[in-house]
Amino acid sequence: MKDFTFEISTKILFGKDTLENLGKEILPYGKNVLLVYGQGSIKKTGLYDKIVNNLKNIGIKTFDLDGIVPNPRIDKVREGVVLAKENQIDFILAVGGGSVIDSAKLIALGAYSEADPWDIVIGKEEPNKAIQLGAVLTLSATGSEMDTASVISNEETGQKLGWGSELVRPRFAILNPELTYTVDAYHTAAGTADIMSHTMENYFSLNDGAFFQDRTAEGILKTCIKYGPIAIKDSNNYEARANLMWAGSWAINGLLDTGKDTAWSVHPMEHELSALRDITHGVGLAILTPYWLEYCLNDQTEEKIADFATNVFGIKESSKRETALKGIDALRKFFTSMGISERLREEGFTEEDLPLMAKNCVNNRSKAEITGFVHLEENDILEIYKKAF
Amino acid sequence: MKDFTFEISTKILFGKDTLENLGKEILPYGKNVLLVYGQGSIKKTGLYDKIVNNLKNIGIKTFDLDGIVPNPRIDKVREGVVLAKENQIDFILAVGGGSVIDSAKLIALGAYSEADPWDIVIGKEEPNKAIQLGAVLTLSATGSEMDTASVISNEETGQKLGWGSELVRPRFAILNPELTYTVDAYHTAAGTADIMSHTMENYFSLNDGAFFQDRTAEGILKTCIKYGPIAIKDSNNYEARANLMWAGSWAINGLLDTGKDTAWSVHPMEHELSALRDITHGVGLAILTPYWLEYCLNDQTEEKIADFATNVFGIKESSKRETALKGIDALRKFFTSMGISERLREEGFTEEDLPLMAKNCVNNRSKAEITGFVHLEENDILEIYKKAF
Repeated sequence: MKDFTFEISTKILFGKDTLENLGKEILPYGKNVLLVYGQGSIKKTGLYDKIVNNLKNIGIKTFDLDGIVPNPRIDKVREGVVLAKENQIDFILAVGGGSVIDSAKLIALGAYSEADPWDIVIGKEEPNKAIQLGAVLTLSATGSEMDTASVISNEETGQKLGWGSELVRPRFAILNPELTYTVDAYHTAAGTADIMSHTMENYFSLNDGAFFQDRTAEGILKTCIKYGPIAIKDSNNYEARANLMWAGSWAINGLLDTGKDTAWSVHPMEHELSALRDITHGVGLAILTPYWLEYCLNDQTEEKIADFATNVFGIKESSKRETALKGIDALRKFFTSMGISERLREEGFTEEDLPLMAKNCVNNRSKAEITGFVHLEENDILEIYKKAF
Repeated sequence: MKDFTFEISTKILFGKDTLENLGKEILPYGKNVLLVYGQGSIKKTGLYDKIVNNLKNIGIKTFDLDGIVPNPRIDKVREGVVLAKENQIDFILAVGGGSVIDSAKLIALGAYSEADPWDIVIGKEEPNKAIQLGAVLTLSATGSEMDTASVISNEETGQKLGWGSELVRPRFAILNPELTYTVDAYHTAAGTADIMSHTMENYFSLNDGAFFQDRTAEGILKTCIKYGPIAIKDSNNYEARANLMWAGSWAINGLLDTGKDTAWSVHPMEHELSALRDITHGVGLAILTPYWLEYCLNDQTEEKIADFATNVFGIKESSKRETALKGIDALRKFFTSMGISERLREEGFTEEDLPLMAKNCVNNRSKAEITGFVHLEENDILEIYKKAF
C-alpha cells in the first residue's frame, strides 16, 4: 500500500427531510448565494421554490445561473464568474447533478482569478482561494458532491477536460434519494454505469496490496448491479435510490484510491466521445469499459480481472483467463440489460471519427499516453475504439 | 435506509514517512502539548524520542502523562486533567493504541469542566468545549483514532463504560503500519478480533436496506480474515499491517452504521468481562461473539447470518439455517486459529462470576437491557455467558 493523505471534509445530510437544514448550513458563509442549476426541471418539480423560500425566510438573497447542460460548457462558467463577482457572492449552491456541481466548482475558483476560467482547467492558472460551495444532489452518478473533481467542455477548442482542486470540495451535500425519483430510466442506467466506471478506474491496478480498498470497490459494484435495474423498473424505490446515491459518493470521494496508484483510462477515452458527439457520459463509459478490459487482458492482468469476475459476478471457471473473459462478458451484458448501447455505431459515431478521437485523446493528455492498468498509446486507443465500434 | 448525517473530519496521514509532518499538523493549535502514552514501549522503540525531538525543533513544549494501561482507568484521566489545566495545554497528542487515545479524549473534555471526569462518562456532565487532540497510532484495534468514542474503567465502582462526543474526534491521526510491527502475536490477534467485532456490531441488524454499508462491512471482515493470520506469523509484513490498520479505522469511524439502527450487543457484554477480570478486550469479544450469534439465530435473523456466512466465508449449504450455523462455526474457528481462547473458563472466569456480570451488564445500561439484533435481557445475557463458559 502506498503512502497517502485522506481527508473528506464534506458534511453529508442524507435522507428525506434533510432539505430543511439548508439555510442553517449556508448561513455561516454569508447571505449572498449564487444558485446554479440546469434546464428547469427543478422548477417543474417544485424543488426550486422550496429552496428559494427556505433561504429567503432566513434572510439569504439568491442570484440565479440557470441553463447548465450535460457535458457542461465553459461559456456558462464564464457567465457564472461574472455574476459572482458583480454580486459579492459569499456561497455557491449547486442544485442538480454532476454538470451543475462541476460548473459551480469552476465558478467558485474562477471568481478569485482575473484569468479566463478555462486557464484553470488547463492548469495555466491556479487560484489559491475559492468561494465555498454546497450541493443539493438530484442525480446519482458523478460523485461530484463529495469530491474535488470537475469536468468542463470547451466548444471552441473541441475539448472536454477534467481538473480538480481541494479548494472546491463541497462544504456540505444534501442527499435526498427522493430527489432522484424523477430521473428517467435512461439516465438512471447511465448514472449507474458512471458510478461503476469510477469504481473500476480505481479498482483495476496491479500489485498494490490495497486489499481493503478493492473489497470496498467490489461492494459498490454489487450495489450498482443490484439496485440499478430496480431503480430503472421502479423509479420511486427508496431503497434502490438511496443505495445508488450513497454508493455513488463513495465511488470517487477518495477512499477507493487510498494507497493505490490509479491512472484513469476509460474516462479520458470517453471524454473524446462526449466532446465530439455530446453523448451521455455514462453511456460512453459503459460501451468502452468491456472492450478496454478485453484489450487489457494479459498474463499480468488476468488475475485482477478474474478477481473482479469472481467477487462481483460470482463467476469461477477452470482457468483465470476463462474466468476473466466471462466476467467481462457479464459486465457488458449487465450494461446492455439496462438499455445501454453495446457499440459506438448505435450512438451515431462513424468509422472516420475514431482516428480523430484517438489523436485528440493523447493530445489532451499531458503525457500523450494513458499510463493505467495497461499502458495505452494512440494506436492502442484507436484499437479499443475500433473494437467498440 | 434511515436518514443520517455523516462527517468525518479527521485527517489521516498514512504511511511510512508520515511522522515527519507531526509538528506541522500540531502548530495551528498551539505550542503547549500534552503527550499521553502507555507503559514505556514507545521509549524502548525510540518513537518517543523521535516525537519529542521533532516537536522541540519547531518550538513546541511537551508535558508527559505516561502509564496508561489497557482498559484505561479514570484515575489516570484525572491526573491528565490536572496536568492540562496547570500547564495551559493547547493540544493533546495521544501516542499509542485505543486505551491511550480513549484517555486523551476524556482529558480533552475534562479540561474544560470543573466536574469530575467520571461524571462525563456517566452523562451527568456535558462540557461544550474540548482541547483539540491528535493521535499517533501504534496498535490496530479500537478505531479510536478516527471516531468519537472512548471507553474508561472505574476501579472504585467496578464499571467499564463507553461514552462519546463529536468534540473529541481527533483532528488528525498518523497511521504508520511500521509502528505496529512490535505488536506481539497475542495482541495482533486480539486487535483483529476487535476490528471484526466493531464491524459485526454495525453489520448485524434487520431490514434496514443498507446494502452498500453491509457489503463494505463484509470487505473489512475479509480483510481481517486474510491479514490477521499473516501479521501474526510475519510481524513485519507491511501489507498485512497496512490493511489491518486502515480497515480498523473504517470499522468504526461512522460509515458502516450510516442509514442503520445499530445497537451494540457484544461490547456491553464484554465490558463486564474486562471490568471484572481485566482480560484483553478483543479476546473477550472473540469468545462471546459466536455464542451470541448462536443465541440470536432464529427465523428472523437466519437470513442475515447466512448472508454473513456466504459473503464472508464462502459457505453455502442447502438451507439458510445450516449456512448460518456453519458460518458461526467458521468464525469461532477463525478466532481460535489465531490463538484466542474458545471459552471464558480458559481466561480465569468461574461459574459464580456469570450471574454477577449479567446483572452488572443490565445495571450499567440506561435501559437495563440490550436492544440490538435480538433483544436481550438479564437472563438472556446470563445464558450467553453460560454457553461461552
